[in-house]
This record gives sequence, C-alpha cells and structure tokens, in this order.
Amino acid sequence: MGDIESIIVGMEKAALERWGKGDPSGFLEISAPDVVYFDPYIPRRIDGLAALKEYYQALWGQIHIDRFELLKPSVQVDGDLAVLTFNYVSYQGDEPDRWNCTEVYRRSAAGQWQIIQSHWSYTEVFKYKLEVRKG
Amino acid sequence: MGDIESIIVGMEKAALERWGKGDPSGFLEISAPDVVYFDPYIPRRIDGLAALKEYYQALWGQIHIDRFELLKPSVQVDGDLAVLTFNYVSYQGDEPDRWNCTEVYRRSAAGQWQIIQSHWSYTEVFKYKLEVRKG
Repeated sequence: MGDIESIIVGMEKAALERWGKGDPSGFLEISAPDVVYFDPYIPRRIDGLAALKEYYQALWGQIHIDRFELLKPSVQVDGDLAVLTFNYVSYQGDEPDRWNCTEVYRRSAAGQWQIIQSHWSYTEVFKYKLEVRKG
Repeated sequence: MGDIESIIVGMEKAALERWGKGDPSGFLEISAPDVVYFDPYIPRRIDGLAALKEYYQALWGQIHIDRFELLKPSVQVDGDLAVLTFNYVSYQGDEPDRWNCTEVYRRSAAGQWQIIQSHWSYTEVFKYKLEVRKG
C-alpha cells in the first residue's frame, strides 16, 4: 500500500471505529466545510459541514457496531484528491449490513486530508431487503 | 456555471440520454480504464472498464426512460479531478425513480474528461421500496 493509501484508509477506519461506538464526530472532524453527502435515508444530497453536523446530531449514541470490515479498499489519487472506494460489512451480533462506500478526500494547503464527498448505499439492496423481511 | 462544470454536466446528461434509450455505451465511451463502479444490484464494486463493459452488456436495450432530471448538480473541481454529485429522477410514464449519484471525472493529459468512479444508489430506499410494494 502506498503512503497516501495508508493514510486515507487509516483515517477512514479510525472514523468508522468511533462511528460504531455511537460517535459521528470522527467523520465530522475530518470533513471539509464544502463536504457533500449521500446516504439511503435522506431525500436530497446534504450540502456543507453545518448541515451534515445537524443531521448527525440525531445519531449520537444510536449506532452500535460490534465489528466491521473494509473489503478491498481502493484509492485513486490524482494531485490533491484521493477517491476511496470499498465494500463495507458491519456486524451487530452475527447480522451483517453490507454497504457500498465512496469517500473523496482532498489535501489542504497545510497537508491535511479532508472528506469533500461521502456516498453510502446498501449493497444488493433488494436482496438485503428480502433478507430483512424474512426475519 | 463555470466552464468545467458545464462540460462535466453536459457529458453526464449526454450519456444519460443514451442510457435512457437502452444504450449503455455512452457511459462506457467516457469511462477510464481504471474506472470503479457501484450500483444497488451488484455484490461487490466493479473494477475496471473491461468488467464494467461485461456487466453493461446484459443491459443493452433493457432500459427505457421517458425523461429525467438532474437536481442541483454540484461539481467540486481540484486540479484534474472533478466530483459531480446530483439527485437524479427518471420517469417511465409518471412513475419516478429517485437516485443519488456521484461521478468522479479525471482530465487526461490530452484534456479529455473521463469517469474514474461511478456510484448510483436509490434515494430514501426504504420509502421507495414501500411505494413499490403498494403497486
């Protein structure tokens, strides 16, 4: 793994560790003011860090993930942008949630990488829903 | 709209026009060899143009979209990368499909923009599925 790839994947894993303990601020702390954001629950893209903070406020203490995996993380680097993509599997007990994730990181003039775009979605959502309906 | 923003949004709309007529090659023609790809139907990220071509092969002639809209397209440009995000609404008759989309374009040495990352997912997927179940 290259240096930038290691840094980016390390930042993502660290933010996900906090996320899985109910703390969304790990992501907020590494997001840029102009961050844009998608997940499966919102009616429109969220624009900007202030709006993302407001959205995440309601999630404090709500998420409990026992363990997670990043499958085959890929980092496409060009200049000061790095495009991280991976399949993510999180577990509460033995129940897996499967996600697709794209994070675009930008390096600031001070050399700090920050997320400017975040896109989370369910992997094979129809299959996933069918599995849920069985339960 | 800036020049780059106009170019990127124009390329995306042109590819979507062809897509809506059952022709996935509009996207394939503007995708880079190292493109990575997510949509809600695949079990893992697709890596590379050859694999994406193979996947799209089965979709030829299958998609019929009467009209579509890109809601609030945003283009974040840094160096030779441009991050396009938008909410997409497509219609077959009066039935809307709502999507979140992130496309990362990279400018080649020859000045040509190409997609290096594509991520399509359903907007408010749970609500969407409930609407579908009603039908």
